[in-house]
Amino acid sequence: MKKIMNKPEQAVDEMVQGIVSAGCGQLKNIPETGVIYRSELPKDKVALVSGGGSGHEPTHAGFVGDGILAAAVCGSVFTSPTPDQIYEAIKQVDQGKGVFLVIKNYSGDVMNFEMAKDLAEADGIRVESVVVDDDIAVEDSTYTEGKRGVAGTVFVHKILGAEAARGTTIDEMKAVADRIVPNIKTLGVALKAATVPEVGKPGFELGDTEIEFGVGIHGEPGYRRESLKTSRELAEEIVSKLKNAFQWSEGEHYAVLVNGLGATPLMEQYIFWQDAEKLLKKDGLLIDFIKVGSLTTSLDMEGLSLTLCKLEDARWLENLKWETHTLAW
Amino acid sequence: MKKIMNKPEQAVDEMVQGIVSAGCGQLKNIPETGVIYRSELPKDKVALVSGGGSGHEPTHAGFVGDGILAAAVCGSVFTSPTPDQIYEAIKQVDQGKGVFLVIKNYSGDVMNFEMAKDLAEADGIRVESVVVDDDIAVEDSTYTEGKRGVAGTVFVHKILGAEAARGTTIDEMKAVADRIVPNIKTLGVALKAATVPEVGKPGFELGDTEIEFGVGIHGEPGYRRESLKTSRELAEEIVSKLKNAFQWSEGEHYAVLVNGLGATPLMEQYIFWQDAEKLLKKDGLLIDFIKVGSLTTSLDMEGLSLTLCKLEDARWLENLKWETHTLAW
Repeated sequence: MKKIMNKPEQAVDEMVQGIVSAGCGQLKNIPETGVIYRSELPKDKVALVSGGGSGHEPTHAGFVGDGILAAAVCGSVFTSPTPDQIYEAIKQVDQGKGVFLVIKNYSGDVMNFEMAKDLAEADGIRVESVVVDDDIAVEDSTYTEGKRGVAGTVFVHKILGAEAARGTTIDEMKAVADRIVPNIKTLGVALKAATVPEVGKPGFELGDTEIEFGVGIHGEPGYRRESLKTSRELAEEIVSKLKNAFQWSEGEHYAVLVNGLGATPLMEQYIFWQDAEKLLKKDGLLIDFIKVGSLTTSLDMEGLSLTLCKLEDARWLENLKWETHTLAW
Repeated sequence: MKKIMNKPEQAVDEMVQGIVSAGCGQLKNIPETGVIYRSELPKDKVALVSGGGSGHEPTHAGFVGDGILAAAVCGSVFTSPTPDQIYEAIKQVDQGKGVFLVIKNYSGDVMNFEMAKDLAEADGIRVESVVVDDDIAVEDSTYTEGKRGVAGTVFVHKILGAEAARGTTIDEMKAVADRIVPNIKTLGVALKAATVPEVGKPGFELGDTEIEFGVGIHGEPGYRRESLKTSRELAEEIVSKLKNAFQWSEGEHYAVLVNGLGATPLMEQYIFWQDAEKLLKKDGLLIDFIKVGSLTTSLDMEGLSLTLCKLEDARWLENLKWETHTLAW
């Protein structure tokens, strides 16, 4: 294992220091909690909080800023933050209008965020939440029941973050969240597994010319392993699965995220996107918003995912375009 | 070689299509030239143009936008664009106030950009240029005389791009450029070589626990190969070399870029930054601007570089913070 770090067990704490420093005053952290939050929070607005295991950077801390997250909670690598960590974040950012939690659907995350919610509610803080389960690869998986939460979570952050910035109430945000999540779907392909620092070797092995469709962002099994395909063929497989999941029709509006999983160069992400776009356009979809980049990674995993968000409401597109200043959006 | 692409020889053209599409209307390209430019250019202002071999994404096309580049010219992978390609870009973006070229110091780039300048001047277009040679690793190298141009080029784009947006004349921009370039210095370390698609294997071999300081962004040899170090030790080596090059004094102001070389996760970049920052602060430097991310890559190379820009002029900091909308800044 070749990684630029000191002791693996210090990696998350040191990363948090680096992220806060890179915020140049816009970010602060609560010592020993993995909580990174905005130094200046707008008064009288709902605060949006997300978090999860580390190793998916820039998810989530890279999206703390005006118009997106008020705070992110960084757990250990690929491990949910504890209820106490999340509770500290909620207390820190509440501005009297409540705190909204965006949770990726993993059993540990769901349990710990719910426990933190209970702790905060006992303090009189209003807390609402949504669980994101955008990965259409498999039902149930290594760390979860139901579908996994992956890169589509970033769209939930952005759309709800803009709602918070608009001054939307927490009840209205819950209604928006419950409408958005079923409209976001993701599917990925892995070329090489990630290596968790404390483990020291790849989480699974793929042969020199092998790929696996539907691998999760912690290396959870996908749905098919086969030999390396061209970008065009990868796009055909992934788009056809998304088409089946959405059952889309000509003229519908979508936002797109092509997401690198960590070690895949932008060049390959853009090549894949031009192949995927041709297929989406052939079906008559209207693509109003496009983001290409490594936004929800899995350490040094090679591969990428394609997320589509059906823009049922024109306001969601405005929210995706809402001005923001963060490390990574 | 596992890469997400179709035919290697189509990679750059397909990437250009993907980048232009991701610009959602803000970007256009000139067919068969690798030129990506802003759809709407401000009148009566100098147009800033850069470019070079592809494989360094998001450099340079990811920085085409308001307040930075008017156009980027994408050559073949690790190969300078031809004079004709660059000439097309110049003609496309000139708004009557001249075109300023930012060139990384490689013999091919310098020659081809200079030839394009001559062609455009014969058309009556005013052209000025600056050659960036920020890499302090070695004097002379595989593809160049003098020092190589690497990630620090991004700071030149941003500072000069903001000057163009301010309405600075081309003569004044040349004066600013000549002052900035000697104040930008970079040094990197590689953990694994990049694989050029048309070659199919890594450009050089490093052992399982080996690293090399000072490798160039095309895999050019560095200055020392040794066994893997901790992040802290890497920071000590790199910062000490930069210190020697700058001969800095307490109280001086700097901007920083920690640049991932392609396949290195953000987690490691942030860990390295917190180590490097401690050393810079110990010497009493004031760090006014920080950017961490994979901005000038070398395909799938593992490693990172540290760029420092001495902020001799407070206006350079304003320029770095100047509002902009691009795919990658």
